[in-house]
Amino acid sequence: MTAAAQASLADLVARRRPGRALESDFYTRPDIFEADMAHIFGKHWIYVGVEPDVPEEGDVMVVDIGKWSVLIVRDDDMAVRAFHNVCRHRGARLVNTPKAVVGNIVCGYHAWTYRLDGELIHADHMGEDFDRSCHGLKPVHLRSVAGLLFICLAETAPDDIEYLAAKMTPYLKVHDLPNAKIVKTVDLIEKGNWKITMENNRECYHCGANHPELTIPLFAYGFGFSPQTLDETELQQAQRYADLVTANHDKWEAAGVPSREIEHLADRITGFRTERLPIDRAGQSQTLDTQVACRKLLGGINDPAMGGLSFWTQPNSWHHFMSDHIVTFCVIPLSPTETLLRTRWLVHKDAVEGVDYDLDRVTEVWEATNQQDGALVALQQSGIESPAYEAGPYSPYTEGLVEKFCQWYLGRLSATALQDAA
Amino acid sequence: MTAAAQASLADLVARRRPGRALESDFYTRPDIFEADMAHIFGKHWIYVGVEPDVPEEGDVMVVDIGKWSVLIVRDDDMAVRAFHNVCRHRGARLVNTPKAVVGNIVCGYHAWTYRLDGELIHADHMGEDFDRSCHGLKPVHLRSVAGLLFICLAETAPDDIEYLAAKMTPYLKVHDLPNAKIVKTVDLIEKGNWKITMENNRECYHCGANHPELTIPLFAYGFGFSPQTLDETELQQAQRYADLVTANHDKWEAAGVPSREIEHLADRITGFRTERLPIDRAGQSQTLDTQVACRKLLGGINDPAMGGLSFWTQPNSWHHFMSDHIVTFCVIPLSPTETLLRTRWLVHKDAVEGVDYDLDRVTEVWEATNQQDGALVALQQSGIESPAYEAGPYSPYTEGLVEKFCQWYLGRLSATALQDAA
Amino acid sequence: MTAAAQASLADLVARRRPGRALESDFYTRPDIFEADMAHIFGKHWIYVGVEPDVPEEGDVMVVDIGKWSVLIVRDDDMAVRAFHNVCRHRGARLVNTPKAVVGNIVCGYHAWTYRLDGELIHADHMGEDFDRSCHGLKPVHLRSVAGLLFICLAETAPDDIEYLAAKMTPYLKVHDLPNAKIVKTVDLIEKGNWKITMENNRECYHCGANHPELTIPLFAYGFGFSPQTLDETELQQAQRYADLVTANHDKWEAAGVPSREIEHLADRITGFRTERLPIDRAGQSQTLDTQVACRKLLGGINDPAMGGLSFWTQPNSWHHFMSDHIVTFCVIPLSPTETLLRTRWLVHKDAVEGVDYDLDRVTEVWEATNQQDGALVALQQSGIESPAYEAGPYSPYTEGLVEKFCQWYLGRLSATALQDAA
Repeated sequence: MTAAAQASLADLVARRRPGRALESDFYTRPDIFEADMAHIFGKHWIYVGVEPDVPEEGDVMVVDIGKWSVLIVRDDDMAVRAFHNVCRHRGARLVNTPKAVVGNIVCGYHAWTYRLDGELIHADHMGEDFDRSCHGLKPVHLRSVAGLLFICLAETAPDDIEYLAAKMTPYLKVHDLPNAKIVKTVDLIEKGNWKITMENNRECYHCGANHPELTIPLFAYGFGFSPQTLDETELQQAQRYADLVTANHDKWEAAGVPSREIEHLADRITGFRTERLPIDRAGQSQTLDTQVACRKLLGGINDPAMGGLSFWTQPNSWHHFMSDHIVTFCVIPLSPTETLLRTRWLVHKDAVEGVDYDLDRVTEVWEATNQQDGALVALQQSGIESPAYEAGPYSPYTEGLVEKFCQWYLGRLSATALQDAA
Repeated sequence: MTAAAQASLADLVARRRPGRALESDFYTRPDIFEADMAHIFGKHWIYVGVEPDVPEEGDVMVVDIGKWSVLIVRDDDMAVRAFHNVCRHRGARLVNTPKAVVGNIVCGYHAWTYRLDGELIHADHMGEDFDRSCHGLKPVHLRSVAGLLFICLAETAPDDIEYLAAKMTPYLKVHDLPNAKIVKTVDLIEKGNWKITMENNRECYHCGANHPELTIPLFAYGFGFSPQTLDETELQQAQRYADLVTANHDKWEAAGVPSREIEHLADRITGFRTERLPIDRAGQSQTLDTQVACRKLLGGINDPAMGGLSFWTQPNSWHHFMSDHIVTFCVIPLSPTETLLRTRWLVHKDAVEGVDYDLDRVTEVWEATNQQDGALVALQQSGIESPAYEAGPYSPYTEGLVEKFCQWYLGRLSATALQDAA
Repeated sequence: MTAAAQASLADLVARRRPGRALESDFYTRPDIFEADMAHIFGKHWIYVGVEPDVPEEGDVMVVDIGKWSVLIVRDDDMAVRAFHNVCRHRGARLVNTPKAVVGNIVCGYHAWTYRLDGELIHADHMGEDFDRSCHGLKPVHLRSVAGLLFICLAETAPDDIEYLAAKMTPYLKVHDLPNAKIVKTVDLIEKGNWKITMENNRECYHCGANHPELTIPLFAYGFGFSPQTLDETELQQAQRYADLVTANHDKWEAAGVPSREIEHLADRITGFRTERLPIDRAGQSQTLDTQVACRKLLGGINDPAMGGLSFWTQPNSWHHFMSDHIVTFCVIPLSPTETLLRTRWLVHKDAVEGVDYDLDRVTEVWEATNQQDGALVALQQSGIESPAYEAGPYSPYTEGLVEKFCQWYLGRLSATALQDAA
């Protein structure tokens, strides 16, 4: 009665105009944030980290997604498992630090004790009628794709993760992620809705004006442009870039390095896209001098100049695999207007800091770029909250993947939140 | 079911007892705060600042009101304009600092560029079908009344701002605000609902016990009293004060300085009141020694002892214009329980600090008074939140203008929020 | 529609499985927190402090419970009274510090003045029609039980406080609380729902693994155990403990010191339990060496080794009375996930610090224990918020009083919140 009545989620989804940004409700309303958590993050494969996060038996990593807390555990048989981080007695959180090394998992409250496969092996004073076998840790679906760890919090996980795994494993295994080590992890809390963080990742229209570091290794023409606005010289440069991509893809694939685009951002439940992109200048790595920042190359790679394999997933990750290092990005919503961007940098596990690599050189491009993007996310969130905001048009040339993110998101909401309600 | 059911806004308005404070719901409920923002602040003329905030071409001031963000711009033709601070592309906030100086308004995200009259003059990669003329900045109503800037966020603004302007311009122009300069701006966040801040401003019943500085220039009898409680001496003093007001008004008006009360606090959409009040002792200014704090007087004023022209507006401002300086107060609600009080002090634009004026002397009375009032606002908010709070009676002698504020507020809610709902 | 529909409070109460923890909604939902405040804290006797909080005429203590603020006042006739801390004029909070010493209670806003019995004795400018006698402070029910102060915010207070007072006064008066003095008060904000704080207090299953200090004076067998898990030696120790309790109760009661258990935790509106428990080793006090920490004993006590009288009340307190000192705990909910634990330590009012007692020795056991419990409360709250949380079983041997707390809580909600709604 007092303020304008809120539109239903179904109405908002139905009235969305293709090719335009989403209405502000999607970025601000607590109930839509809850729907995002319950249906997008609660029912899809979510990227959470890498096998090198838990390299040894007994290593534990805690991943908090919304109100869920999940333990990622390396068991004694070297299998990686996932469990809810909740004691089956009174519900205490079991592991309360981001990482831990344990023998068994022991609850700090009343010392209930679980093995790394989740079995409850000790609980005092519970009496003879108590059945320990009914009180093991609750498992969470986990799938490692060439070392990238995806979890699914739903009872039944979408099975097309197998399609993604089949397609992506050949691309990824070249870089041998399981034998890499994390050299830096940075948590950045962006002041915007998680979809603004994702949309920012899905276009480089903003790169020229905002990313002086990233635009050194990345070709300006690699992310779309309006041909009408280019002069003759620029059109020739754009054509040379297109030719370079084709030539490199032919060369790399002939050498057994899968490189050509695969694109399923909007047409699969477990949406993704990949392509190996040439790097400008020295052609080697996403560094300030475009040369490798780590002399010891990943896997069995011999040629440092093999561009960068980029891999994007819906709803929450992107990754860049170079010959010398890997940068991997995980997005976790914190509130309608706050988002965690967790970035990990990895090099070969045997590389020695100061000898084989300089940490600053490995990380400096994306540390700067993340800061710049975080500021842009905050700007957009801030403006979108105004009642005067009206969803503007996406560029047909440079924002096509933003549009695909929106299509995937709305389609998945329709298939989950709206289906449940129907 | 669990707690007591909430009263509807319509019921709360209908059952309000005249002459008594409002029920606590008005000061605490988030939905009523939203109604206040949507209907009181969203549909009425709101005082936001002064022309000297943007004295030069290209000067920009950002005004945030609730979720709105507005740009106040001095265009190259010296006109002051207002626009929503939201890019028409993806909604990014355009200006992210309180003040800026610009040539054009350029969005930091994808460099869309707008002229100071709001026209979109540049947007890359949007293709040939894109119509720039449909994507200019959205304008906001703006009206300068003798240099005081009012905006209205509604599509259609109340037209009786013209009545206010016609009545007030002769009173205000004496002090030549457009040729003054801001010498200090202080933002004070009061821990109370905005209506508590306003009600505190509308009476001086609390002055004696709380404002040792302000009661130096202000006459104790100027804000009402109960004749029954005065002794013979006090009654004589009160009569002398009444005679002084009449004599001064006659003198000032004869000299071409409008001074007599105009009062439309509860009977107009754009409610206001004004009166030129004598100042105690030296009679010159609201300073600790009651003498002017700036030797260079405003406008063409020759006589420093011309009292203080006070001007109050509904819903969110008050102002004191003396011969030497101006103090102007703008109230912006931040949350149901937090309010921004932005105070500006101005002197003649050619006055030189340290020569013509000492900044501390200009500001010390109201800096102290604002702090004291902020503490009182917090006390009242805190007590009102108790379920034991019961709206008490206003003094018929000293709280009449508080009652008029409540009448105006409830009347405007009835005409807007309740009308929309009916 | 978007997230799972919330269960009604009635359904949640009805479907609770006896012998298991409560569902997470009880610990997290804002509407259930409001029901707790309105019905549990708003309609029952709440422990708030001790007579030594206001030892002298004019002493005032402010107690904030949810949105209520209450003045506890020692009047000139030495009676302790309670009033709402809200001015009857515009609702300002009257006393804005935790404690104060006053002649009358004067509102800081417009100087309305009340006597310590609540009568309004001064209000300026209100006119001849104003009736002061209708504008006295609103009283709050207050009952001192041997110096422990309970208030009830409801219009009609449960009358079985008299049963509690009749039963408990003989137990408590031995320690002469009114002639003790507070030597330390500590406010600890625990990061959990108030019921988690209470449930933690109602079992010592967690003590062995978490409370190295508290388990020095407390016997391990005093709080329940599963006989199946004890070996022969442990069973003999348990029997010796049971015999010790019986022998001590016989001895203390013969000496006029009531000691045997009274238990009404779940079967009375004003639920409580008491028992005088032996202390381990020297048998004197809850200190690190189990000896008295204050040489001057309380009341007329001669024998320092009289164990500890423990007294627990629903919904919000527990207390330990030893021969030398008293520790008393008051729980006040702050939000669904934050709880204030206010702990006071008292010794004989004539004891001299540094001569009769060392403050650290008096307080060190419970200061450490509170910190440990606060961490456990946070762990449980954190885990319970996961959608994967499922209420686990209570130990039939060690968590019986937790179960009784849950029974009392659900029963009282049924009799108040659900009754009102029916």
